[in-house]
Amino acid sequence: MPPYRITLAYDGTDFSGWQLQARAGTEVGRTVQGVLEDALSVLGGGIRIAVAGAGRTDAGVHALGQVASFALPREMAAADLVRALNGLLPLDVRVLHGALCDPAFHARKSAVAKTYRYVLDTGPLQLPTRRRRAGHVPGFLDERRVAETAALFLGRHDFASLANTGSSVRTTVRTVKRSEVRFEDAPEGATGPVLVYETEADGFLRKMVRSMVGGLLVAGRGARTVEDLKTALLARDRRAWPPPAEARGLTLVRVLYGPGTEG
Amino acid sequence: MPPYRITLAYDGTDFSGWQLQARAGTEVGRTVQGVLEDALSVLGGGIRIAVAGAGRTDAGVHALGQVASFALPREMAAADLVRALNGLLPLDVRVLHGALCDPAFHARKSAVAKTYRYVLDTGPLQLPTRRRRAGHVPGFLDERRVAETAALFLGRHDFASLANTGSSVRTTVRTVKRSEVRFEDAPEGATGPVLVYETEADGFLRKMVRSMVGGLLVAGRGARTVEDLKTALLARDRRAWPPPAEARGLTLVRVLYGPGTEG
Repeated sequence: MPPYRITLAYDGTDFSGWQLQARAGTEVGRTVQGVLEDALSVLGGGIRIAVAGAGRTDAGVHALGQVASFALPREMAAADLVRALNGLLPLDVRVLHGALCDPAFHARKSAVAKTYRYVLDTGPLQLPTRRRRAGHVPGFLDERRVAETAALFLGRHDFASLANTGSSVRTTVRTVKRSEVRFEDAPEGATGPVLVYETEADGFLRKMVRSMVGGLLVAGRGARTVEDLKTALLARDRRAWPPPAEARGLTLVRVLYGPGTEG
Repeated sequence: MPPYRITLAYDGTDFSGWQLQARAGTEVGRTVQGVLEDALSVLGGGIRIAVAGAGRTDAGVHALGQVASFALPREMAAADLVRALNGLLPLDVRVLHGALCDPAFHARKSAVAKTYRYVLDTGPLQLPTRRRRAGHVPGFLDERRVAETAALFLGRHDFASLANTGSSVRTTVRTVKRSEVRFEDAPEGATGPVLVYETEADGFLRKMVRSMVGGLLVAGRGARTVEDLKTALLARDRRAWPPPAEARGLTLVRVLYGPGTEG
């Protein structure tokens, strides 16, 4: 069973996320993992091939550099695998790269860091062509307070206040290595700056990046002080922290692996 | 009946174009003009309000600066009109600006120039998030030959070779004031340059810009020489010219009016 890793880009708009836990009485939606496993099943001659994804992105969240790993029943040249998958997959998922990898490689467990980007339009109107790829919260944001709030996340913290209540993880402690905000000019035809937030960490809890952005917005609007949000972060209580920003502005940009697991 | 002009942006993906001529036995699709007239009808208390659009964009073609004109049965503050329309319109159409205008103003007839932009990905794979807003023709394009072909369009010509066969216009002569190509770096996560073509003319025939881009591609690939395309342009015969590029890469960027008709 030769092991492979692939890098994927997708438009998350029409997906119920990477993975949808089937629950009793709930219809299972279209998921990225699902369409990928369907395509691999064709290549595997009908055998179901389990796929591990580095980041379990939510419904509406996009990817430029999602990584997935799986084992095929037979060896294929990596370039052929990429071409075959792109021929089988819907156009809102593309395989950008593929390679045979170490049998010990696991897209999620081997990951050492992930980078997410959030794009948010702040003008009074959002251009229709940006609806699928940027959040929209009209109104002035104080750049200094947004930056100060972003700095709160840096370092090793218990992020329980920013974790989706439904998550069942061993620990809610994560180390954030990068947490940067920039404001870009309004897109052509629109007014109001665009907030671009990028963060890198050894891992993220469910809805953690969107909750980070939710905090940036509340601070930027002046609805809560940076000091107040610092207290809310330390409280390790989801109810203390502002609600998450909407999914459509979020993209999983890249996943990093240790040098021994590359390729 | 106070006259108004508005500036519109839309994502053309889910529209059958600006205007769909109802033909016997053909279902009339969702059009930008249609959703706009529906919204105006609500504001007008049920009266149908006819809307003129500057450019009759085809299915899948986007707009950043489409202009429309109409008369309302009662006067409204322009800012209220914009807010009310945006409340009534679907999110893939936004009114960016509105103003009371001269009664003689007509969005199409008063226009003196229009600018269109075409964006085309040339890498082997198109990122899913670019599918709705860029065409995709993988493969190398010779930049010099593309630029030389773009220069053929400059000036006053009979563009019958680039007009959709279905068009019934008085004249196929148009004056192209700008016809510029640039190649941008691949979008993040992708490979292969992006061709961006911008053209301004006193008017465009149906599918003319997409036919221009079709010519750029054929020349850039080396399938036909620039000299050969020059002959094809002069032939005033649609069959002499390459097929049009796909709609999704095209955007109506702006419409210009004479100084007397502004506002």
